[in-house]
Amino acid sequence: MIRRSFLGAVRLGQHRVLPGVPQVLPRLSPTSAFGSSADSLVSRFCPEKTDLKDYALPNASWCPDMLNLYQEFLEKTKTDGWVKLPSFKSNRDHIQGLKLPFGLAVASDKSDWRIFTRCIQEEGQGYEYVIFFHPSKKKSICLFQPGPYLEGPPGFAHGGSLAALMDETFSKTAYLAGEGLFTVSLNIRFKNLIPVGSVAILNVDVEKIEDQKLYMSCIAQSRDQQTVYAKSSGVFLQLQLEEESSQ
Amino acid sequence: MIRRSFLGAVRLGQHRVLPGVPQVLPRLSPTSAFGSSADSLVSRFCPEKTDLKDYALPNASWCPDMLNLYQEFLEKTKTDGWVKLPSFKSNRDHIQGLKLPFGLAVASDKSDWRIFTRCIQEEGQGYEYVIFFHPSKKKSICLFQPGPYLEGPPGFAHGGSLAALMDETFSKTAYLAGEGLFTVSLNIRFKNLIPVGSVAILNVDVEKIEDQKLYMSCIAQSRDQQTVYAKSSGVFLQLQLEEESSQ
Repeated sequence: MIRRSFLGAVRLGQHRVLPGVPQVLPRLSPTSAFGSSADSLVSRFCPEKTDLKDYALPNASWCPDMLNLYQEFLEKTKTDGWVKLPSFKSNRDHIQGLKLPFGLAVASDKSDWRIFTRCIQEEGQGYEYVIFFHPSKKKSICLFQPGPYLEGPPGFAHGGSLAALMDETFSKTAYLAGEGLFTVSLNIRFKNLIPVGSVAILNVDVEKIEDQKLYMSCIAQSRDQQTVYAKSSGVFLQLQLEEESSQ
Repeated sequence: MIRRSFLGAVRLGQHRVLPGVPQVLPRLSPTSAFGSSADSLVSRFCPEKTDLKDYALPNASWCPDMLNLYQEFLEKTKTDGWVKLPSFKSNRDHIQGLKLPFGLAVASDKSDWRIFTRCIQEEGQGYEYVIFFHPSKKKSICLFQPGPYLEGPPGFAHGGSLAALMDETFSKTAYLAGEGLFTVSLNIRFKNLIPVGSVAILNVDVEKIEDQKLYMSCIAQSRDQQTVYAKSSGVFLQLQLEEESSQ
């Protein structure tokens, strides 16, 4: 169970207790085991049976390119070790599979909480995306079709919408590949604008896991790989997960 | 007038024409004048009379901290050279003041286009923010109150939501301070999580303008400055604006 009290800001990337700074995460013990295998994390993350709506499924707004790519990767889930990740309305819905550390409290009020990349519920207007993850290769593919609510320059996706989806794809990959939970840094170089309604493919790789940090890279490009939209890197922090026995 | 044809991807940060790559922006002429002063850009960006809804005004969801800070900066607009920027539903609404370069076309279909950081229209659920800009100091302050649709870790704002608002604040600052139009790069270091419903203050400074690029920095922190949420830098590209005489 997640602790129910609501605590203040959570300090990242720094494990000593500073005077006057809220310290709600446990200090990391270098000897603590990050014991969960990717397979175990994936199976908790992808419940076989659930009543929750999965937003990472085709709907009427998906363009032919998006549908074709989805089918292509769905085939790979049968033969090539890829896993299609479900995407619920909030990380709270993932909590059964997505364990949080002690102290990262969940407010128990009645708000309609939504994960940012699912903040728009009208099909096709905002984020349409699905992430496929490969546990043994420690990589992800995200198919992304931005809608007209994600606009920056007229007719094109806002750079921040791509940044947010890169962060989200990094975060799910980091969690499943190595219990990475929090973004330490995100560096993006933008190359081309993504037209609203087209499809971008985000390729995410875990480059290395070192000193309780995961180092990842991402390239976002068009389906034909002729247009690179952006390249990025991200660093995520591993945090000691709450013991299952405490539930 | 913005050209009405819809063209493909816009290539950034690179001005030579590559074979096979859509090239819809004009080559930059080093001798072209980036002639508009910040004052002139600001006056076009902030129409005195408009029927458009300004989303950067207080509403019932704003917490006391947000309201107090807003009033504090509003006072500075009277005495200290600060300007409160309006925030319409889409950059298309800003187009009278926000000139786009040749070739960056605006689709003329009937879609309900929204700038990404105004994608959620329910008050208090998503982004609540207002940007104040200081033309002569070339700096901005953004007051940001994330709602429950911007969640990442349960109870806290998604790192991507802060990244997107940093990009948006950079972009408006870059445009008004030096005709910067497109994000070239965005680098963020996250330090602490922002609790949903609290207020973060983003301080953006233009560090230098060189080789048709604007280099900017941002620090996001709590009102009491005791908690740094994130630090970032951004580089924006200046582009030759369409001549007013062609309108």
